Amino acid sequence: MSRFLKSSFQGIEPYTPGEQPKNSKLIKLNTNESPYPPSPMVIEAIHTEELENLKLYSDPEAKVLVEAAAEYYNVDEDQIMAGNGSDELLAFSFMAYGEKIYFPNVSYGFYKVYGRIFGEKVTMIPLDKGLKIKVKDYYNLDGTVIIANPNAPTGIALTKDEIEQIISCNKNNLVIIDEAYVDFGAESVVCLLGQYDNLLVIQTLSKSRSLAGARIGVAIGNKEVIRDLKNIKYSFNPYNLNRLSMVAGAAAFKDKDYFEKCCDKIKDTRDRLVKDLEFAGFEVLPSKANFIFAKPPGISGEEYFQQLRKNNILVRHFNEPLIKDYVRITIGTDEEMNAIREQLSVL
Amino acid sequence: MSRFLKSSFQGIEPYTPGEQPKNSKLIKLNTNESPYPPSPMVIEAIHTEELENLKLYSDPEAKVLVEAAAEYYNVDEDQIMAGNGSDELLAFSFMAYGEKIYFPNVSYGFYKVYGRIFGEKVTMIPLDKGLKIKVKDYYNLDGTVIIANPNAPTGIALTKDEIEQIISCNKNNLVIIDEAYVDFGAESVVCLLGQYDNLLVIQTLSKSRSLAGARIGVAIGNKEVIRDLKNIKYSFNPYNLNRLSMVAGAAAFKDKDYFEKCCDKIKDTRDRLVKDLEFAGFEVLPSKANFIFAKPPGISGEEYFQQLRKNNILVRHFNEPLIKDYVRITIGTDEEMNAIREQLSVL
Repeated sequence: MSRFLKSSFQGIEPYTPGEQPKNSKLIKLNTNESPYPPSPMVIEAIHTEELENLKLYSDPEAKVLVEAAAEYYNVDEDQIMAGNGSDELLAFSFMAYGEKIYFPNVSYGFYKVYGRIFGEKVTMIPLDKGLKIKVKDYYNLDGTVIIANPNAPTGIALTKDEIEQIISCNKNNLVIIDEAYVDFGAESVVCLLGQYDNLLVIQTLSKSRSLAGARIGVAIGNKEVIRDLKNIKYSFNPYNLNRLSMVAGAAAFKDKDYFEKCCDKIKDTRDRLVKDLEFAGFEVLPSKANFIFAKPPGISGEEYFQQLRKNNILVRHFNEPLIKDYVRITIGTDEEMNAIREQLSVL
Repeated sequence: MSRFLKSSFQGIEPYTPGEQPKNSKLIKLNTNESPYPPSPMVIEAIHTEELENLKLYSDPEAKVLVEAAAEYYNVDEDQIMAGNGSDELLAFSFMAYGEKIYFPNVSYGFYKVYGRIFGEKVTMIPLDKGLKIKVKDYYNLDGTVIIANPNAPTGIALTKDEIEQIISCNKNNLVIIDEAYVDFGAESVVCLLGQYDNLLVIQTLSKSRSLAGARIGVAIGNKEVIRDLKNIKYSFNPYNLNRLSMVAGAAAFKDKDYFEKCCDKIKDTRDRLVKDLEFAGFEVLPSKANFIFAKPPGISGEEYFQQLRKNNILVRHFNEPLIKDYVRITIGTDEEMNAIREQLSVL
């Protein structure tokens, strides 16, 4: 820390992202990336002319991307804002709406960090003993609500009806649904935007569209909320998306077939792995995400993590009281999942 | 504005970026981009393998880019942080150090916006009548100082000695030098980092390295200051740079020859244009940037802007009392500058 830092940032505890190892021998199942490359249409979109155009600023409205997203989600263009990853959109949302905020006590770890920086009253609502969100705890609150659906790192999803209950029981509060993992079997609530002005949905292209390295997220809401977020963006970093990510993202939204094929494959792989782990005695939470949260039999979460690591398999372990018995395993290719299976015999 | 927005953001006045027109017939001289494409090494760096790797998160430390930058600037790697454009680095710097801040009353328009959002006491120090920074006004202040060198939109640079005076007369304050345009003839103060722990330099690859559309900036400072900025980044958006911009930026730093050739060409073009405009009666401020700030004879800044616009030449006019008589013209290719010359006869 330098001697110049503002007092409110002293002792700040930043988010710890999952390791991005340089060792390419590792089977990397720790940050929920897709095992499949981006759509061939993405690769084609980034051609030499686009590269030479890098000399010019990118479009701050990201029109090419927003158009493609609006068509995919079947909403108006002024209902969408693109972000430099969904983390940026979450940061802007906490800046705009996070003064008084509620979220589950086990969820995406970044909410706590944003809450500390931008919030004044942050309330974390406990999950039940099965690590599920208790829907009724979110009725009739007096501040913004943010819920990841499916939740992280549990992978457990609420139904659309359950989320609609939360939205309709909070008419005077904004309800933010973080749908980073929604494409792997959960129900999106984008279709509810027409009925509720207090809903904001945030999605990412990092998971189901194989573009973690392009850094693209989208916020989808009613146009007044999107205008708030744009005002913040234009007060912070107007050119927040680069030219190449913009065309990559647009192509990814257009290639619906490829997207669906990848999601289906990952769901199949997941369901097969869950069966095998359960057969081996693991307790696996019911996942609607591209990862599973699993408790190994007769060995601690930390030990299992270390054992996999020794065998060049990198998963994620969170050393926090409520979830330390589990590890989070990203669903990779079938071959990568076989490497997990090979380690079952030694348990 | 939505009914949910935090009161402190209500009535926010965002920055207005220069127009990014879709009409490709326009000669675009309004946002200080390079007229030359990025280095061929940049184009080569973005190959198919890199595109397929987009499925993986980018390195939050941006090591490949930071390494290349550290070699170019001859500093340690922990003295550099990469940003999603220098705007993001400026935003983080205002968050960290902008509680009490001083800057010139005519400068990069974003400082005012950041000051309003993150500052508590913002003081704008008037330029002299020739639109120059009065160096002594910046001695012995009691808060952070930020100066663009060369200044925008005037293009006028302070010397290294003048800036060193400011730094050494503010030992208890951080002095931030925004060197977005330094490569076109001004003196960088990166070489002073060894002597002063209260200096932070911010540069961009958008201008002299032809990468406006890739969104890359670098902050160069002592390691404690860089650690502060990293803590803020890791609390806001850890994966702030995408994979492609990272390799593009690294290649741009490595191709020093191409970089120097482009800068030399732009300086030559600028100096010839300045002579011709002065001959035609313009008052042109002494520019060390890739733009000039010029006051046309016998016609208002606004009228001249409109006349150029009618002839498909887009420059920038700021409708603010102190500078409304001027237009800012980006230095393009020699052919593009001839289009400006052709309009001289009608003045």
